[in-house]
Amino acid sequence: MLPFSRVTIIGLGLIGSSIAHGVREHMPSVRVTGYDADPAVRDVAIRIGLCDDVADSAGAAVIDADFVVLCVPVGAMGEAAAAFAPDLPAEAVVSDVGSCKESVVEALTAALPGATIIPAHPVAGTENSGPEAGFASLFHHRWCIVTPPAGADPLAVERVIEFWKRLGAQVEIMAPEHHDRVLAITSHLPHLIAYTIVGTASDLEEVTASEVIKYSAGGFRDFTRIAASDPVMWRDVFLANREAVLDMLQRFSEDLTALQRAIRWGKGDELFDLFTRTRAVRRSIVEQGQDDSRPDFGRSHD
Amino acid sequence: MLPFSRVTIIGLGLIGSSIAHGVREHMPSVRVTGYDADPAVRDVAIRIGLCDDVADSAGAAVIDADFVVLCVPVGAMGEAAAAFAPDLPAEAVVSDVGSCKESVVEALTAALPGATIIPAHPVAGTENSGPEAGFASLFHHRWCIVTPPAGADPLAVERVIEFWKRLGAQVEIMAPEHHDRVLAITSHLPHLIAYTIVGTASDLEEVTASEVIKYSAGGFRDFTRIAASDPVMWRDVFLANREAVLDMLQRFSEDLTALQRAIRWGKGDELFDLFTRTRAVRRSIVEQGQDDSRPDFGRSHD
Repeated sequence: MLPFSRVTIIGLGLIGSSIAHGVREHMPSVRVTGYDADPAVRDVAIRIGLCDDVADSAGAAVIDADFVVLCVPVGAMGEAAAAFAPDLPAEAVVSDVGSCKESVVEALTAALPGATIIPAHPVAGTENSGPEAGFASLFHHRWCIVTPPAGADPLAVERVIEFWKRLGAQVEIMAPEHHDRVLAITSHLPHLIAYTIVGTASDLEEVTASEVIKYSAGGFRDFTRIAASDPVMWRDVFLANREAVLDMLQRFSEDLTALQRAIRWGKGDELFDLFTRTRAVRRSIVEQGQDDSRPDFGRSHD
Repeated sequence: MLPFSRVTIIGLGLIGSSIAHGVREHMPSVRVTGYDADPAVRDVAIRIGLCDDVADSAGAAVIDADFVVLCVPVGAMGEAAAAFAPDLPAEAVVSDVGSCKESVVEALTAALPGATIIPAHPVAGTENSGPEAGFASLFHHRWCIVTPPAGADPLAVERVIEFWKRLGAQVEIMAPEHHDRVLAITSHLPHLIAYTIVGTASDLEEVTASEVIKYSAGGFRDFTRIAASDPVMWRDVFLANREAVLDMLQRFSEDLTALQRAIRWGKGDELFDLFTRTRAVRRSIVEQGQDDSRPDFGRSHD
């Protein structure tokens, strides 16, 4: 049985539009309603036929939904939820796709008192943004972390899990605090570091921007992909998951200082030991289907 | 006219074997001789028919070569050159593919007094190593940096340039010192940071190794690719290009500290400004053909 029959997506960026495509492909009988606070995005969604219906207001979008998914930057969750709160059907389940969960749970609970809120986070994405960036297979073989609040209705949790499984994801249950620490290291810190090094490279005087670009295949280009991710989304993530990000950053900086010292003092064995250890991590990621097994991510070489 | 007719490759790893495949494909009349100090690698090279001939010693490999390319870790260049020095024909041109150039020029000049040495660095690679990792298109549309010493024979420089163009590369001339600073930011620092964060993630107690792997699609997996590169090669690069790497690392650390401070004090505008600026760099890299234009590097999503 389908977990929901009338799904409303609030926020039609990469993730929202990918959910729309995913529902169309995997649950074709489900009605998809979309809404975005930006009228230009709504126009694009209408033009490309992303949803069965694009509403003119948040309230109109949710009025007969049985599932509402918020796909807006984490800093905008509270406001987006407040915008449809008066029109939310009592029996609807509300979820989201935010990259941090403690702050989102807090914002949604405050904006939607009494509503059934089952937050979730599909760990998937590309560097592209906007309503035309989505595609149905984005969630295939990726993990979606569901973080039900204490005392959540088990049936509602099951329906949200089933929804994500239908989109091709594997589902894990986690406490919001633990989610935020896990994602701080597997997602937030990598983005922060990527943004930083691309900034550092851009600011050099002696190495020109043209040289940085020409010789980026030496490794740098890998970092530029995630450093091209949506600026508003990522600003909000760092502000919302501040404590966990700062803690992981502190650990990273200590480790980097240790390597800096090993280089300065010519301790080749320390470098070699670390570089050998890190190979195994890559192997596990590929073995567990979380990355392409082809060399160079399967990038085209012609 | 072909730049060389008898090419000897010393070191049959990813780059050496890719050169062998490239010569086979693009200059099929050229004879390719291979040698590797590791007998097991020589056996694989013979089994897969990588070269026309695999020699039993470095001296036998170069004895009638007109071009000798050293494809060994930068810390092993001097020793590898010394091993064939007595047998090197006077008219042969010697080159290499090392990722840093000042130290290599020094080592090769000391090991091969009087020889014609034209160092080069093809900025290309994958995370795989060994004689079976190579493929002919690795250098297509990539840059190869040639760093001729002062007073180098212009004809020899031209022949080395032509060789790399035949393998599909674009060629740039650069001074060794400048090369080492450019590559410190576009290649060496990215690798150092990737190795560090993969190490940091592996050492956490509260987040399990299994969680790091499962949720790596949030960004972390991008870093694991280059952190799976050859440990000996990279140990040598950091030791050989120490000053430039430490300088770039210092700049990176300062920038990271500034971001850390922006997060701690909730300065969203500073984050947003940087994150917007870094998007443009990615766009230029894709526009100039140095990365795949498909989202997510063109990774398979099914």
